[in-house]
Amino acid sequence: MSDHTYKKIELVGSSSKGIEQAVNNAVEKASKSVRNMRWFEVAEVRGQIEDDKVAHWQVTVKIGFTLDG
Amino acid sequence: MSDHTYKKIELVGSSSKGIEQAVNNAVEKASKSVRNMRWFEVAEVRGQIEDDKVAHWQVTVKIGFTLDG
Amino acid sequence: MSDHTYKKIELVGSSSKGIEQAVNNAVEKASKSVRNMRWFEVAEVRGQIEDDKVAHWQVTVKIGFTLDG
Amino acid sequence: MSDHTYKKIELVGSSSKGIEQAVNNAVEKASKSVRNMRWFEVAEVRGQIEDDKVAHWQVTVKIGFTLDG
Amino acid sequence: MSDHTYKKIELVGSSSKGIEQAVNNAVEKASKSVRNMRWFEVAEVRGQIEDDKVAHWQVTVKIGFTLDG
Amino acid sequence: MSDHTYKKIELVGSSSKGIEQAVNNAVEKASKSVRNMRWFEVAEVRGQIEDDKVAHWQVTVKIGFTLDG
Amino acid sequence: MSDHTYKKIELVGSSSKGIEQAVNNAVEKASKSVRNMRWFEVAEVRGQIEDDKVAHWQVTVKIGFTLDG
Amino acid sequence: MSDHTYKKIELVGSSSKGIEQAVNNAVEKASKSVRNMRWFEVAEVRGQIEDDKVAHWQVTVKIGFTLDG
Amino acid sequence: MSDHTYKKIELVGSSSKGIEQAVNNAVEKASKSVRNMRWFEVAEVRGQIEDDKVAHWQVTVKIGFTLDG
Amino acid sequence: MSDHTYKKIELVGSSSKGIEQAVNNAVEKASKSVRNMRWFEVAEVRGQIEDDKVAHWQVTVKIGFTLDG
Amino acid sequence: MSDHTYKKIELVGSSSKGIEQAVNNAVEKASKSVRNMRWFEVAEVRGQIEDDKVAHWQVTVKIGFTLDG
Amino acid sequence: MSDHTYKKIELVGSSSKGIEQAVNNAVEKASKSVRNMRWFEVAEVRGQIEDDKVAHWQVTVKIGFTLDG
Repeated sequence: MSDHTYKKIELVGSSSKGIEQAVNNAVEKASKSVRNMRWFEVAEVRGQIEDDKVAHWQVTVKIGFTLDG
Repeated sequence: MSDHTYKKIELVGSSSKGIEQAVNNAVEKASKSVRNMRWFEVAEVRGQIEDDKVAHWQVTVKIGFTLDG
Repeated sequence: MSDHTYKKIELVGSSSKGIEQAVNNAVEKASKSVRNMRWFEVAEVRGQIEDDKVAHWQVTVKIGFTLDG
Repeated sequence: MSDHTYKKIELVGSSSKGIEQAVNNAVEKASKSVRNMRWFEVAEVRGQIEDDKVAHWQVTVKIGFTLDG
Repeated sequence: MSDHTYKKIELVGSSSKGIEQAVNNAVEKASKSVRNMRWFEVAEVRGQIEDDKVAHWQVTVKIGFTLDG
Repeated sequence: MSDHTYKKIELVGSSSKGIEQAVNNAVEKASKSVRNMRWFEVAEVRGQIEDDKVAHWQVTVKIGFTLDG
Repeated sequence: MSDHTYKKIELVGSSSKGIEQAVNNAVEKASKSVRNMRWFEVAEVRGQIEDDKVAHWQVTVKIGFTLDG
Repeated sequence: MSDHTYKKIELVGSSSKGIEQAVNNAVEKASKSVRNMRWFEVAEVRGQIEDDKVAHWQVTVKIGFTLDG
Repeated sequence: MSDHTYKKIELVGSSSKGIEQAVNNAVEKASKSVRNMRWFEVAEVRGQIEDDKVAHWQVTVKIGFTLDG
Repeated sequence: MSDHTYKKIELVGSSSKGIEQAVNNAVEKASKSVRNMRWFEVAEVRGQIEDDKVAHWQVTVKIGFTLDG
Repeated sequence: MSDHTYKKIELVGSSSKGIEQAVNNAVEKASKSVRNMRWFEVAEVRGQIEDDKVAHWQVTVKIGFTLDG
Repeated sequence: MSDHTYKKIELVGSSSKGIEQAVNNAVEKASKSVRNMRWFEVAEVRGQIEDDKVAHWQVTVKIGFTLDG
């Protein structure tokens, strides 16, 4: 690893299944516009309740990727 | 959404299965005394260890609900 | 519970499966050198991304155990 | 002031006008079920955007009141 | 310990004597309306000064108790 | 709400009038390059003083919007 | 701007009108003893409730000013 | 209480006896140069160990006082 | 003091008497395995409630000591 | 300074030399795609260790720049 | 060390060279009005960018000194 | 990288030269008792002042290393 520079973007993934799937969804969505993703950091976990049940998990993640050239 | 007011209460759900189930348990328990739950926020994740294994996941959640009238 | 003293150590467990398994891995590894583990606290959740997918979950946990004698 | 005990509850007031009005709304709503309110603490300010404009200010406040007797 | 759910409430105990007594006062007051208290967490320590001396210690505590049934 | 993904960007709006106007300015400016804005979070309030008076309110906001398709 | 040194002081301004006026009051009061004020940072917003209404907004601000010479 | 402005200063009181005495020492020392002290906030508790025993408690307190005139 | 290196360990001392005694107990226990302790930092104060009274104070302290040679 | 709006982006600069150089590298890299940079804020300092020595300093910086027109 | 009381003041030192020099500048400036300085704590590191380069490092430090008599 | 577990220890390195050297000193000292160090995180920067000059930089670092076997 030489003197790379990375950029972090902040996304909120959501899923009805759970925390991991919400993160996976955020990473998959990010892959459509960002290359060279390297790591993520979970910043917040929350969600919505409907009819007395958890309806959506919403997970804020920061995603780091290498800046080209 | 007009000028609603919400109240947040703080619960700790526990589960031997994992984080999501602990949150589900807290929401289900809250549903017995609170109506119109709208969202939750995970504030802390911890748990107990017995015989060198995780025995209980304990997840502190804040639950927001609409105040009637 | 009389006037026990506890010590906390800080580990990072990793897993390709998810958060709970990463914690389980950290607790299992800790059990090889520490006795009387009592509780854990999740301090940070992050992970690595490879080929546009989450490759490893890395969970920082503090583990508390009773000091002997 | 003798040895009083206070309780804090956490509300989210909302308003289309601004932060102060959102707090006022929360306090007014709380007054319907709580007596002897003494102070508030602003914990979070956020809101919703509709049609590219701020539609609602949502202010989380902790409200402290004296416990009777 | 099976899959219990706990609730946390936030009180401010005060005392002219010191921190521990302020917490004791909050716990005693809470015992009049809450059953099955299990633990407390000190969130803030502050107080009032009168005539150049500490007149009241004010300690914010979160108190956790088991929800029935 | 299905499994949407949101992105958050961080802006600093400024205004000589006050906090709400500084947020409004940031949202208006963001609307020129971002679609589907949904919510904002106030992260910091500060400002500049000139001639012994507040000259500018500077409010850091995170703005969340839905990522297309 | 050469190598200036700044000092920060911490004030609490209060106002019955709102947050901005409380900050203005703090800055005006500070101007009686401090020169060369440059910026402020809002650290805390709270207030007092009387007769079920907000009676005073109390805003903690840090004020930065250039040290002479 | 009209529109007063308060100033906060930050002191570290120390005592070989305990936390309350360290705060009392800080307040007493402050009284020699500051008038109209109203409240304090404990920001940090630490201390020094000598010969395997706590030798000094060091408590950082912010002290608020009314600004004259 | 030349260029020493220190290590911090994190302990939880408990006591039925109060905060200071819980810290003293942690320091005394640490003295059985650690030499050259220099300072401590209180990180958390909590405790257990039994029969509507505080039964144990549990104080998390970080203890710093000089690493030998 | 009129009512400008600023945007903040978050980068991680790295350098084998030290903290300042890691920040310089991040700013230089940002200059290739961003105009009108005005300030930076250091959010985190960490790094990698290889062969028992610090191999890379990794500094997370938020960079603020004026949004055009 | 007997029962001393310390005061902390908060300064922002700046330097075009780097973090250490900015702290040195703040300490040197403080020495003109404060005696018996004992320690400093770095609270924030930021700076200004001009012409796509770091122009000034601005380091917020708290400086602690012994209060006389 | 398979499912490794890491441990973090917390050290305070000191140096009269600056922040980087204080970290280097901590890492070098740690290398005498720990193998497989991988990364460090700076948690706190402070120092001592003597004769109106910075005499020692004290940098708290968490050091992460791979647990064997």
